[in-house]
Amino acid sequence: MLLSKLFIPITKDLPTEAKIKSHQLMLRTGMIRQSSAGIYSWLPLGFKVMKKIENIVRNEQNNIGAQEMLMPTIQSADIWKESGRYDDYGEEMLRISDRQKREMLYGPTNEEQITEIFRSSVKSYKLLPQIFYHIQWKFRDELRPRFGVMRCREFYMKDAYSFDLNENEAVLSYNKMFFAYLKTFQKLGLKSIPMKADTGPIGGDLSHEFIILADTGESKIYTDKKIFDISIDKYQNTDASLKKMRTDFSQFYAVTDDKFKSEDFDKNVKKEDQIQTKGIEVGHIFYFGDKYSKPMKCSVDSKEGKKIFVKMGSYGIGVSRLVAAIIEAKYSKEKMKWPKLVSPFDVVIIPAINKNDNSNLDKAKKIYDELKTNGIDVLLDDVEENISNKFKKHDLLGIPFQIIIGSKTKNNMFEFKEIDKESQMLDLNEITKLLKN
Amino acid sequence: MLLSKLFIPITKDLPTEAKIKSHQLMLRTGMIRQSSAGIYSWLPLGFKVMKKIENIVRNEQNNIGAQEMLMPTIQSADIWKESGRYDDYGEEMLRISDRQKREMLYGPTNEEQITEIFRSSVKSYKLLPQIFYHIQWKFRDELRPRFGVMRCREFYMKDAYSFDLNENEAVLSYNKMFFAYLKTFQKLGLKSIPMKADTGPIGGDLSHEFIILADTGESKIYTDKKIFDISIDKYQNTDASLKKMRTDFSQFYAVTDDKFKSEDFDKNVKKEDQIQTKGIEVGHIFYFGDKYSKPMKCSVDSKEGKKIFVKMGSYGIGVSRLVAAIIEAKYSKEKMKWPKLVSPFDVVIIPAINKNDNSNLDKAKKIYDELKTNGIDVLLDDVEENISNKFKKHDLLGIPFQIIIGSKTKNNMFEFKEIDKESQMLDLNEITKLLKN
Repeated sequence: MLLSKLFIPITKDLPTEAKIKSHQLMLRTGMIRQSSAGIYSWLPLGFKVMKKIENIVRNEQNNIGAQEMLMPTIQSADIWKESGRYDDYGEEMLRISDRQKREMLYGPTNEEQITEIFRSSVKSYKLLPQIFYHIQWKFRDELRPRFGVMRCREFYMKDAYSFDLNENEAVLSYNKMFFAYLKTFQKLGLKSIPMKADTGPIGGDLSHEFIILADTGESKIYTDKKIFDISIDKYQNTDASLKKMRTDFSQFYAVTDDKFKSEDFDKNVKKEDQIQTKGIEVGHIFYFGDKYSKPMKCSVDSKEGKKIFVKMGSYGIGVSRLVAAIIEAKYSKEKMKWPKLVSPFDVVIIPAINKNDNSNLDKAKKIYDELKTNGIDVLLDDVEENISNKFKKHDLLGIPFQIIIGSKTKNNMFEFKEIDKESQMLDLNEITKLLKN
Repeated sequence: MLLSKLFIPITKDLPTEAKIKSHQLMLRTGMIRQSSAGIYSWLPLGFKVMKKIENIVRNEQNNIGAQEMLMPTIQSADIWKESGRYDDYGEEMLRISDRQKREMLYGPTNEEQITEIFRSSVKSYKLLPQIFYHIQWKFRDELRPRFGVMRCREFYMKDAYSFDLNENEAVLSYNKMFFAYLKTFQKLGLKSIPMKADTGPIGGDLSHEFIILADTGESKIYTDKKIFDISIDKYQNTDASLKKMRTDFSQFYAVTDDKFKSEDFDKNVKKEDQIQTKGIEVGHIFYFGDKYSKPMKCSVDSKEGKKIFVKMGSYGIGVSRLVAAIIEAKYSKEKMKWPKLVSPFDVVIIPAINKNDNSNLDKAKKIYDELKTNGIDVLLDDVEENISNKFKKHDLLGIPFQIIIGSKTKNNMFEFKEIDKESQMLDLNEITKLLKN
């Protein structure tokens, strides 16, 4: 892609309405544009990042055998009345009356809807255990939407729902998802900590939030720093290994505000290992048994012919929120570096362009064509602009690799730079090889 | 995937509420489930097909240089008041009042929203010509939603918007999209005809509908049958070639109801070449100049420094509707055959399973593993069921290739069948090769 043709409305000024750095950076680099309070359009750069995150989330769901489907955004109020949550949910639910005066709503979550689908189609234990997921837009009518896509009204989420015959098996499903979440955040280049959490309006008695550390986080967290040493790579997707994983994590104190008690903290964590900081919630998982299946009469026949209310869990990852969360984790001092797998481009070519001298731009175009032929997603900064301004701009865009075409270029050797590292002189073959790895 | 674990709630009975065959088949094979009037959940089988269609649509948009972005589903009424369409749009617009009593709506289309984004960010002619697109859920509050996802309320659409400096260049953008549409429908295994059409509530003076023939279609069409002989493969994405393409198509009479005049038909088409039939609209493109840019004050500076209202077009493809349209085109006499590129699975293995004899199932599992290792998306029908019932079921599921493990299986030779063709005995290498092509 040529930068001159790419639609990224870069703003030079610091947007005054943006209070946190992810919101600032997303506006400055034209990733998003607000269309109304708490509702955003995703411009090409932001869209590409979000799509890459979505696909990583999807792959890790598929890896644990979850089946993808898609529920609509607009739901009937009827199922919420069945579960008893229609009145409880309050003003955050966007309530809608259609032309026939039917009570509808824009789904803030999908426990009722998936339960309705399941009960209407599944009658036997044979399909269990089962996990479904979907990635869909949701709406919560926040009173004060703020912090850009971090706390907005229309947001993009993966949510999954597990169905089991009994609590023991349900915990195995819960463990799988716990594992998939740690894998997902690792792929995204984030270090996440699972923390015991309150279940809130979803209900139930077993719940973890997945938190990444960030000073700007909304959640206060209290943890034993040794929890960071657990490597997810040593576990496999088997019941025994995942049980071990849960045990390993649970030996370290790690809770959010709601669950915090200072005497527990001091009792369980040595002073020098105590971390009190802030974090961003990027995922939340719940086990709630028959909280929905019972009032909504969602049962299956067991092997013995007994009707059993299915035991359910639900599991959310904020896909649009993750774009901002990654920025909060990776952006500091006017420099951003996207993790490779979610970067909007694999590499950017930055030629120094002088008036009346196109030789650098010509060289850059040749490299551009060559890299594209090799299946590399490359951005060419063909804009006529002072080179130091260019570098400042690319510090914000955060594409992790740069090929700089300027005075250092000699014959077929080009300056290749990974952000935060020393640049090196390489030929195009070596560059291609590096980028393909 | 094992069929016993795949969530496709197959119904044996013909659903009485479904009046057209695509709606019937989608319910019978568990592709969708209605959640409320005109609103559907997409279950795993339907979801997979829709996702494949979406990706074909996306690739052809990218091939003509359109840039993907994503606008939200919920819009502010303000921009619709600016364009003057807020009051005109009528009851099909789902109007929403949020907790702050702001007037919002669920977007039925996005001309206003994209114009607002463009005017706020682009000030110079340099970014032109430009085409943006997005693939997003939309809502039209149909009085009588019917025919399943063919005429529903919440639906999935690709819409694109072009921006040009003048009408001549805008027509070039229009031609590109015309080309991308024909390519898209060809990839989907459909023969589409572009027909001159009325512009309706979008406005403007140049418009084509893309129609595929189907007896159950809602649109009456009148055309010269010679238009089917034009091959899209002979055109390239250059201004000259695409101009030629438009000329070639325009020499044949092809219109929908709105534009039909019987004297024109008789004057322009020989009796023996006249086709009067029904079809399904799968795409619609419009050029409408400054209809939105003028009232919404969306202008750019020309090279000469003059303010010019951008000339716009819009271009829609109904992605969710295409799932049903393909069925209408490909399904008859209780037999479906999905076009290869959108089939939910590449191939299905159908073992004859007898009580107390797992040998066929064991063979099937070995083939299954082998094909999966080769990156082939394979379904294994491991359900214990009479083989003739199995065949009936797979007639409906419509996966184009079958490997049948039964009495004909000899050593390492398996019965391989493409729907509608004679079966042949092949070894696994030959089968893998065939499927990979």
